[in-house]
Amino acid sequence: MEINSLEWREEKSRVIFDCRIFSIRESICRSPEDEARTFTVMDTADWAIVIPLIEGAGGREFVMVRQWRHGSRELSLEFPGGVIEKGEDVFEAARRELREETAYWAEKIRKLGEFRPNPALMSNTVHIFLAEELRHTGAQELDEDEFLEVSFVMPQEVLRGMGKAPFVHALMGSALALYLREYPR
Amino acid sequence: MEINSLEWREEKSRVIFDCRIFSIRESICRSPEDEARTFTVMDTADWAIVIPLIEGAGGREFVMVRQWRHGSRELSLEFPGGVIEKGEDVFEAARRELREETAYWAEKIRKLGEFRPNPALMSNTVHIFLAEELRHTGAQELDEDEFLEVSFVMPQEVLRGMGKAPFVHALMGSALALYLREYPR
Repeated sequence: MEINSLEWREEKSRVIFDCRIFSIRESICRSPEDEARTFTVMDTADWAIVIPLIEGAGGREFVMVRQWRHGSRELSLEFPGGVIEKGEDVFEAARRELREETAYWAEKIRKLGEFRPNPALMSNTVHIFLAEELRHTGAQELDEDEFLEVSFVMPQEVLRGMGKAPFVHALMGSALALYLREYPR
Repeated sequence: MEINSLEWREEKSRVIFDCRIFSIRESICRSPEDEARTFTVMDTADWAIVIPLIEGAGGREFVMVRQWRHGSRELSLEFPGGVIEKGEDVFEAARRELREETAYWAEKIRKLGEFRPNPALMSNTVHIFLAEELRHTGAQELDEDEFLEVSFVMPQEVLRGMGKAPFVHALMGSALALYLREYPR
């Protein structure tokens, strides 16, 4: 089978729902066999996730944040991250989210890769960064409705716990895979 | 800070949009400081992802599928998987998706973990499985609008490529992290 025989092309698209944080679009596409089908797509902002590495008493540690998640209605222990503002540089967004959520500034930051959080339903991208040479800058800067607790966790504890509470956020699993490529056990 | 001081409680919830594959709910919640806030949540089906392992000429290989993704509008090379039907056992769903998409039946299947694909926005769960002792069963059984190409890929090639095209699906990254816990390099 040729690659081309898997590709669809979009014919038309219209927004059918819009709220503060995302919009829903109906997309009419032609299949490889030239049949028209309608798909539903969510458009929302791109995100940045930062894996912050720090030298702790027992060796290398991640700086993580514990927070309530309103979609799944549970506590989740995660790498810091958040929405990239319109026009904001992705590296700047990563550094900003790290500083706001953990009060650490990264002297050294590099991108490990990017993913589509949900390419079947969503059009956006998440960019994954590794932050090193951290410097404490003072206090967290949280939004009024953000409640975050900073936590230092050993990589092997995160790997052992990944895929069950509190390590339930799938994008943190994706980020961990890229970390394990950089730093195999 | 106490864990309790991060928890919100839901007061009210109502559906504000509904389509074939998901619905959108407005959820009014009380913050740890007893302020009311409105959040928007997407409810959709749970998913199963299967990492199928097979012995190839050059050693262990993943059975993967290449397909067009309508959210991101690109080709993606993925582990097989899909929606768990209402009332369907998650192990059965995993075996069914594997068989339909790749034409392989798994004699041995075990669960590696589960994630919230997007706990900030979505309420659903993805269950990750490892399938071994595969047996070829004949032909793929695809939906009318599914076009999938089966591909055999070495784990180190997937790890090397993860986080860029065609390994762009974030949930495949999460699954890979759990695979690397089972089979470190």
